[in-house]
Amino acid sequence: MKCSVIRIPAGAPNDMSGLQAAIEEGLFRPEEVAAVLGKTEGNGCVNDFTRGYAVMALKAFFAGVSQEQRPAEISYVMSGGTEGVLSPHFTVISRSGQAETGVNADGLKSLAVGTARTRIFRPEELGRLSQVDAVADAVARAVLDAGITSEADVHFVQIKCPLLTAEQMYDAHSRQVSLVTEDTYKSMGYSRGASALGAAAALGEVERSALTEADICVNWDKFSAVASTSAGSELAYCEVIVFGNSLSAEGPYHIDHAVMKDAIDGAALQGLLDRYPGEELVQVLAKAEADPDGVIRGRRHIMLDDSDINHTRHARAVVGGVLAYVGGDPMIYVSGGGEHQGPKGGGPVAAVFRRR
Amino acid sequence: MKCSVIRIPAGAPNDMSGLQAAIEEGLFRPEEVAAVLGKTEGNGCVNDFTRGYAVMALKAFFAGVSQEQRPAEISYVMSGGTEGVLSPHFTVISRSGQAETGVNADGLKSLAVGTARTRIFRPEELGRLSQVDAVADAVARAVLDAGITSEADVHFVQIKCPLLTAEQMYDAHSRQVSLVTEDTYKSMGYSRGASALGAAAALGEVERSALTEADICVNWDKFSAVASTSAGSELAYCEVIVFGNSLSAEGPYHIDHAVMKDAIDGAALQGLLDRYPGEELVQVLAKAEADPDGVIRGRRHIMLDDSDINHTRHARAVVGGVLAYVGGDPMIYVSGGGEHQGPKGGGPVAAVFRRR
Amino acid sequence: MKCSVIRIPAGAPNDMSGLQAAIEEGLFRPEEVAAVLGKTEGNGCVNDFTRGYAVMALKAFFAGVSQEQRPAEISYVMSGGTEGVLSPHFTVISRSGQAETGVNADGLKSLAVGTARTRIFRPEELGRLSQVDAVADAVARAVLDAGITSEADVHFVQIKCPLLTAEQMYDAHSRQVSLVTEDTYKSMGYSRGASALGAAAALGEVERSALTEADICVNWDKFSAVASTSAGSELAYCEVIVFGNSLSAEGPYHIDHAVMKDAIDGAALQGLLDRYPGEELVQVLAKAEADPDGVIRGRRHIMLDDSDINHTRHARAVVGGVLAYVGGDPMIYVSGGGEHQGPKGGGPVAAVFRRR
Amino acid sequence: MKCSVIRIPAGAPNDMSGLQAAIEEGLFRPEEVAAVLGKTEGNGCVNDFTRGYAVMALKAFFAGVSQEQRPAEISYVMSGGTEGVLSPHFTVISRSGQAETGVNADGLKSLAVGTARTRIFRPEELGRLSQVDAVADAVARAVLDAGITSEADVHFVQIKCPLLTAEQMYDAHSRQVSLVTEDTYKSMGYSRGASALGAAAALGEVERSALTEADICVNWDKFSAVASTSAGSELAYCEVIVFGNSLSAEGPYHIDHAVMKDAIDGAALQGLLDRYPGEELVQVLAKAEADPDGVIRGRRHIMLDDSDINHTRHARAVVGGVLAYVGGDPMIYVSGGGEHQGPKGGGPVAAVFRRR
Repeated sequence: MKCSVIRIPAGAPNDMSGLQAAIEEGLFRPEEVAAVLGKTEGNGCVNDFTRGYAVMALKAFFAGVSQEQRPAEISYVMSGGTEGVLSPHFTVISRSGQAETGVNADGLKSLAVGTARTRIFRPEELGRLSQVDAVADAVARAVLDAGITSEADVHFVQIKCPLLTAEQMYDAHSRQVSLVTEDTYKSMGYSRGASALGAAAALGEVERSALTEADICVNWDKFSAVASTSAGSELAYCEVIVFGNSLSAEGPYHIDHAVMKDAIDGAALQGLLDRYPGEELVQVLAKAEADPDGVIRGRRHIMLDDSDINHTRHARAVVGGVLAYVGGDPMIYVSGGGEHQGPKGGGPVAAVFRRR
Repeated sequence: MKCSVIRIPAGAPNDMSGLQAAIEEGLFRPEEVAAVLGKTEGNGCVNDFTRGYAVMALKAFFAGVSQEQRPAEISYVMSGGTEGVLSPHFTVISRSGQAETGVNADGLKSLAVGTARTRIFRPEELGRLSQVDAVADAVARAVLDAGITSEADVHFVQIKCPLLTAEQMYDAHSRQVSLVTEDTYKSMGYSRGASALGAAAALGEVERSALTEADICVNWDKFSAVASTSAGSELAYCEVIVFGNSLSAEGPYHIDHAVMKDAIDGAALQGLLDRYPGEELVQVLAKAEADPDGVIRGRRHIMLDDSDINHTRHARAVVGGVLAYVGGDPMIYVSGGGEHQGPKGGGPVAAVFRRR
Repeated sequence: MKCSVIRIPAGAPNDMSGLQAAIEEGLFRPEEVAAVLGKTEGNGCVNDFTRGYAVMALKAFFAGVSQEQRPAEISYVMSGGTEGVLSPHFTVISRSGQAETGVNADGLKSLAVGTARTRIFRPEELGRLSQVDAVADAVARAVLDAGITSEADVHFVQIKCPLLTAEQMYDAHSRQVSLVTEDTYKSMGYSRGASALGAAAALGEVERSALTEADICVNWDKFSAVASTSAGSELAYCEVIVFGNSLSAEGPYHIDHAVMKDAIDGAALQGLLDRYPGEELVQVLAKAEADPDGVIRGRRHIMLDDSDINHTRHARAVVGGVLAYVGGDPMIYVSGGGEHQGPKGGGPVAAVFRRR
Repeated sequence: MKCSVIRIPAGAPNDMSGLQAAIEEGLFRPEEVAAVLGKTEGNGCVNDFTRGYAVMALKAFFAGVSQEQRPAEISYVMSGGTEGVLSPHFTVISRSGQAETGVNADGLKSLAVGTARTRIFRPEELGRLSQVDAVADAVARAVLDAGITSEADVHFVQIKCPLLTAEQMYDAHSRQVSLVTEDTYKSMGYSRGASALGAAAALGEVERSALTEADICVNWDKFSAVASTSAGSELAYCEVIVFGNSLSAEGPYHIDHAVMKDAIDGAALQGLLDRYPGEELVQVLAKAEADPDGVIRGRRHIMLDDSDINHTRHARAVVGGVLAYVGGDPMIYVSGGGEHQGPKGGGPVAAVFRRR
């Protein structure tokens, strides 16, 4: 197996010219694309249609360019919100060969990507242990799919998860089952939180037997240091992409991660860069969050009190700026809403490198 | 002369409890206060009333606490906008003694603060060379007032300048004189720009004889590396506060500055910190700006196209985050709108240190 | 007793020039002012400091102008948010004489205003029946104070109520008592809702014995057709102002009300105007709300899904526009957040008239 | 010729389910669709991608459903911004037969729709008399195309016009020609204004010979009472849709218009309704604008000073609310930005009726 990561600038959510040019230059082959992660320039909140717009454009684009057999489905994960210096772009993740086919000539572990899906959830399962368990199972399968043999080799787990729609609430009410929340917006947080705890359980970061329903979106001490989850109304199951390193993979790419302890913890990324001097930093993947206590480094912040700008927008601007400074490039993937993804107020940061 | 700088957290624009406590603890003496710089939590744009609210509260507070003779007038400079991690606070600048009275025992230059004012401007002077010249003269006087003997010892020049109000426009029209702009909002930029060029001329950063009216808010190659200007409707003259170092001043405080070449140039502040190892960083003063070309480090940014969030708000969030990471503290003074204050897309950053 | 209502335009939250001019013209006497209702131009949400700014300015103003004995305390009720055509202004309510002293020469009922306060609440009482009962009691006393003898003569009940602050939550936790919510923002809705139900109980609009704690902010069928409540952190009790008509009052002013069944029900105000042909419409007082079902007249609205503009802001813009059209004047009092104040999606509208 | 207008609710910019259902119910035939006007739920400003998203979805939809020959191109005019009660929807305009083929059996004029295009403009023509003249010519041709024989029978002229992009500015600079503005956002206003004056000239509302370049976006006394123009980057020519009545057209639909003198002039629409008692109001088409003087009915409004919400958003919320009240339905077409479209602060309002 050989995996690669390439970033393509986007002039708009529907701008496919960069992807077209990259294919023509031979930078990636459309039939090998496993996933596209996008940063689109909407508000990243409820009424952000740039995500759907980009997906519609990407599907039409890949349907047009691919003559050969492609993977059944490319996984599209669009994250809205390019506040501050964050630059709209697509991250194309390619994979050729199977996990078992790699023979890493130089004995180094290389980037390995695996995917998996959960079953479709019933509304009453969302934000509960039932979702946690199904995600944990899918993460374990994706790790296998990637040919990763140790939990320590998993460095980023991107999960796309469902939310509760008005229709699903109506269905649940008609069956007289209770839901974790009656609020569509809040269900996004519960679904993200349960998904993150599922990853944490699969990777041994939290002990599944010690996890109760009451921990979800309450006990922030339990978290995954590598999970990045986002909720959307376009699916009823969870889609999992695991990024890690494996001896079964070959090629110059590899990945590592650290944990930002708060939104201005640029030292977390700096530490990663210091580990691989001379290597090319290909992409940064991170989660941003306004500290829910309203305080950072002992100072009051106003992000949670601002009724004009959503706190996730503030947080992305800050984390994007800090990581752009440290990494020297503002075209990075920083997403908001970090329930159980890294510690309270902080979040995971992963970096993909390319050996020269 | 002895000058000091102290920061006081504010729980709201009208929260004077921190100032009260600081006086009670003997951290500063109200009768020695020369200026208060504030970061207040409004939007920092046209309809930001947190600035006026804070000034009303501060005036009432200082009128209440001072029994002794005070300076004729404390200079209040409120900058709205605490996006991201920026923490609302007041910076109290105190000064005792006169510039000439200092005898710096250890031969080191110490923080010296001087103030001056221009005459009242006629509307038609704003944003033109007439304003540039008057500000240049005031900056020169403030440098003298501070007892600073070399332009190289000036590290931050805070200028509060007027804007064109509808009333002033009416007055000008009735006298049939032309104005630099017919747009109230734009007059803020012109006034900031002319003020900054005035500082630049006074400090020899641009050659006055080579400066034409057409340069103002057009030719961004001409700028001051130490000016920070903000426009407001509450005054009709310019108020200048010069921060620098002088052998005539004593005490542990001193100041230095650098120029951020863009919004993520944290290395500028890092360089300052590296010059004074072991010293306490007391305050950071900086200007933030979205690059007017829409590009940063070769990547497109969306700050100028965002009709939901003003670009100055994006820029403050980024610069605040980067400098908070580098300096380790989010309670810093970062203000927006940087016409002729530092290079295009960048801006001055000053740091006040305290020798231990 | 003689009560009057006068509106004063405000150029800014701290603009007292209109009030000053009105006093000089003899339009009202400062020592007779019972209450000032304001529409200020902030966002009307959590971080709206224009309310506090206006109150600070008003208190300083009235402290300055009153030589004579004044009522112990003027009641200040500031409502933020002047979206669309709504014009920032102050409504000054004056009252001279006592309720019992009026002798209405012409046998007509005239405007009568009464005020009352509840005791200070413990945090655990907020949003619960305990608050409902205390408000009901205060409303009854304010009705008496106004000399109003029939519930049918009460047409507008403005209530200012507390919210749960972080400090109060901490206090409650330390005493191990449970609160109605752990969310400061949500506590505003609970407090508004309980206050409105208190008014409804006092006025016989809902049967107190049939009211349970579970009705509060859940059962929207129970509401007051005359309550207008707003929550703020500046008080720990409820302040009640009752507007109605009484035979004990004299003068040309009187008030009436109707219920808007949704945000575009201008016919409610039109009906009031049609009742009093030839009279001067002095002021309109109304509540605005985005229908919580996301539908109005069978059409989807996007107010609840908009992460850029708070739904209360959308709703005020609409109701303000509709009532400004019907009444012919955009300088009216329209406030947002209508829990149990009028039916779901609708709200009370009162009109003060002056007989010619 | 037979023309019809039908409204289709949209659950999202890409929601084609209503259109699909309408075709299945036989409410319109896709091959007869001449134009689709949409209200989409973005901010209606620069970074509103809901317009492009809807167009992408509509093009794919109509490409899928049409088996038969269709008009060479459907004209898509998307207007962003559904503030307040405005409900996202599509207005489908169908036309069968040619203008000359109609024989109106009952002697009544019926709805007639005509379309035309200008040539492609060079950048330096935009916002200038050259654009005015080309639009005037196209409007005249569209009137002919509609079989409308008198200017008095034209009631709404929807024009989609280009703006200046950065690329076009670069091209112009390289050819050393001057442009009407160097600001992309402002070019939208100039293009809308010149287009509206073109319609006014074609329809005899302003005298072409008396029109100078200096009138464009300056002299608001010159305007069209029926033009509704919107600028976009997706075309380099102007596209014109004329709505009027003609004896050559048949069918139950007809159209009329009035002029709102300000944003709360609901009486304009009320007057139209009063002219056709008993008829069904099919659709309302209107323009919204914040009065550029900052005053409405003698009262200050804050729409132009609000740095959090664009004034076009405020204005749409108000006009949408007022017209929804008068017409009884919030699913109407209200668009913002009214340079030379109706008087200063006001705008045209047209109503399509269906005889019963």
